[in-house]
Amino acid sequence: MSKSRLEAFTDAVIAIVMTILVLELHEPTAGSFAALFEEWHRLVIYVVSFLMLAIYWNNHHHMFQAAKTINGKVLWANSLFILSLSVFPFVTSWMGDFFSDLAPQLSFGIAIMMADVMFFATAYNLKKATDDNETVSVFFNKYYKSWVSIGTNVIAILLGVLIRPELIFILNAVMLVLWVVPERRIERVFQQQR
Amino acid sequence: MSKSRLEAFTDAVIAIVMTILVLELHEPTAGSFAALFEEWHRLVIYVVSFLMLAIYWNNHHHMFQAAKTINGKVLWANSLFILSLSVFPFVTSWMGDFFSDLAPQLSFGIAIMMADVMFFATAYNLKKATDDNETVSVFFNKYYKSWVSIGTNVIAILLGVLIRPELIFILNAVMLVLWVVPERRIERVFQQQR
Amino acid sequence: MSKSRLEAFTDAVIAIVMTILVLELHEPTAGSFAALFEEWHRLVIYVVSFLMLAIYWNNHHHMFQAAKTINGKVLWANSLFILSLSVFPFVTSWMGDFFSDLAPQLSFGIAIMMADVMFFATAYNLKKATDDNETVSVFFNKYYKSWVSIGTNVIAILLGVLIRPELIFILNAVMLVLWVVPERRIERVFQQQR
Amino acid sequence: MSKSRLEAFTDAVIAIVMTILVLELHEPTAGSFAALFEEWHRLVIYVVSFLMLAIYWNNHHHMFQAAKTINGKVLWANSLFILSLSVFPFVTSWMGDFFSDLAPQLSFGIAIMMADVMFFATAYNLKKATDDNETVSVFFNKYYKSWVSIGTNVIAILLGVLIRPELIFILNAVMLVLWVVPERRIERVFQQQR
Repeated sequence: MSKSRLEAFTDAVIAIVMTILVLELHEPTAGSFAALFEEWHRLVIYVVSFLMLAIYWNNHHHMFQAAKTINGKVLWANSLFILSLSVFPFVTSWMGDFFSDLAPQLSFGIAIMMADVMFFATAYNLKKATDDNETVSVFFNKYYKSWVSIGTNVIAILLGVLIRPELIFILNAVMLVLWVVPERRIERVFQQQR
Repeated sequence: MSKSRLEAFTDAVIAIVMTILVLELHEPTAGSFAALFEEWHRLVIYVVSFLMLAIYWNNHHHMFQAAKTINGKVLWANSLFILSLSVFPFVTSWMGDFFSDLAPQLSFGIAIMMADVMFFATAYNLKKATDDNETVSVFFNKYYKSWVSIGTNVIAILLGVLIRPELIFILNAVMLVLWVVPERRIERVFQQQR
Repeated sequence: MSKSRLEAFTDAVIAIVMTILVLELHEPTAGSFAALFEEWHRLVIYVVSFLMLAIYWNNHHHMFQAAKTINGKVLWANSLFILSLSVFPFVTSWMGDFFSDLAPQLSFGIAIMMADVMFFATAYNLKKATDDNETVSVFFNKYYKSWVSIGTNVIAILLGVLIRPELIFILNAVMLVLWVVPERRIERVFQQQR
Repeated sequence: MSKSRLEAFTDAVIAIVMTILVLELHEPTAGSFAALFEEWHRLVIYVVSFLMLAIYWNNHHHMFQAAKTINGKVLWANSLFILSLSVFPFVTSWMGDFFSDLAPQLSFGIAIMMADVMFFATAYNLKKATDDNETVSVFFNKYYKSWVSIGTNVIAILLGVLIRPELIFILNAVMLVLWVVPERRIERVFQQQR
């Protein structure tokens, strides 16, 4: 089964989700900076969500770059990954309106966790669908990334429930910054620990 | 005539329909779980519609994987298939607001039936456009899938009209679950009956 | 210059325009057939606009199938073609709300005419960018299609201004039906007249 | 690392941004030309934004046409380029409602400047990722385009702050016209000055 249509389809969905996130921003009610700054937390949430989606796309791109064949299980894991991403505009917008409430923060945290779990499931099934040993080992080395992500999601949800709801967004956003900027250094640290 | 642009175009449309479905969800009016649960039937409808579209995409992917050439009739059957899918956000949203009424349920049922009929028409014309015998036989074995789908659509519509409108959504959703989970077992059963 | 990205880009735009047309449909205010039928003219406009876009895509597909190289002029003619299509949701929605008024009907008529003129400009520049004689002659035989389309657009606009605004939509829609159904017969008639 | 998915992904995002710009147009409240002309400045902004995006796509197309390999830095510069473009519907719509105010004009000016800076960053990293000397020199000759664009952005912002906010839109739009129409002549002038 060829992988190119799955790649193209996933690209299209991520591109659309990224782009319609902006439709959830409320237009400022006046032409002043004050009116824009009333939206500042929504703008921050927008940029963070956009970067998260860009990272998912980057990782998806790298992962399938290495793959040669896919099967039905990969298709389904990938579809559920896409489903998780598709609710981003909904949970992002709700969280923007009720930033200090647990329900929207928890929905946001669960959506991210689902996306990370399904990304792992896609990677896992992709590895099983591939015979090539070298590619398999590269995938395996990359699994720690999924574990760290899912671990962070769980901790964020726990802290959000136990301490303050806002921590769910903040922890996931901070993790994002750590993830983007010094990706190579983190990779080395983790590979040394193994 | 090359099939790659038709595949890319169909991918784009299905990806967009999947993603704008989420725009039809109403944002909860408060930051509480109660406010989210008021939306629970819309969320269920959303997930069901998303999975339906994912199955259509999967089947489309498999079908064109086997195809080598297309012609004008395939293009037109495929365009009407896309047209049927494109009304999903409209009928899904309407059904979400008036779940117990016949008119939106019937619109939903007819949209799915049209999609299934047009998928069959695409498969039928694709088979006729292909000379390769092996591919043809694979197509033919898969026709039963279309017949079961269209049969379910018709029964759902009849039960909806005669008993309760909600049955249209419920029967199509149950069929979906049967379809996804044990696809191979059903296939074997049907192939033994032939 | 390779044509594949231009094709993919045009596919994406047409797919999005087709799909967001449905966002312009008003959701019926009740769950009854009466509420749906209040929308009937919008639904007809939706289907007609969708089929128009499907035909543009089909023709674009055929035209670029034959092409080998493109240049900067083709890129720009194609961009203006895309611009014309991108206003379809705007004019379609406006016409749906004020069907008997001249201003929205004229906007709709001009948008279609612009699309047809720019499609012709794309075809013309594509022909000039291609050295292959056989392809050139195929293009040339197809020019009559553009002339008939643009002629119909002009006549529709004239009749709309002079007699009744609705004629702009109706004439373009009737032409569409003629175009889709017996395309080959019309082609033969025109080729005999030449 | 192959460039085709990055191209396809960028194409999808630009296509969606172009197309949802039209969703930000307010539908005229009546079916008269007067109602449409009340929207005239929004329509002008729409066409200008559309053409800007078409130019970005054209330039992106040309740039990656010449590229052979990409790396992680190119991916990230391109992602930030996409982020800048994705806010176009937001700033365009806000500027349409408060055309004479500084805050929306400045947001628009900064969004364009960010897009130009990130396009330059993409080009710069693409050049560094490529070993082929001929391609490098072509890139280098094209850098002046980025400098002129960014310079215009800065001047527009300064004039907007110091004199009148509207100048930000007007100067960027005029620059656009200069850019599209006689692109080759400008290129020759700049290449002679070097």
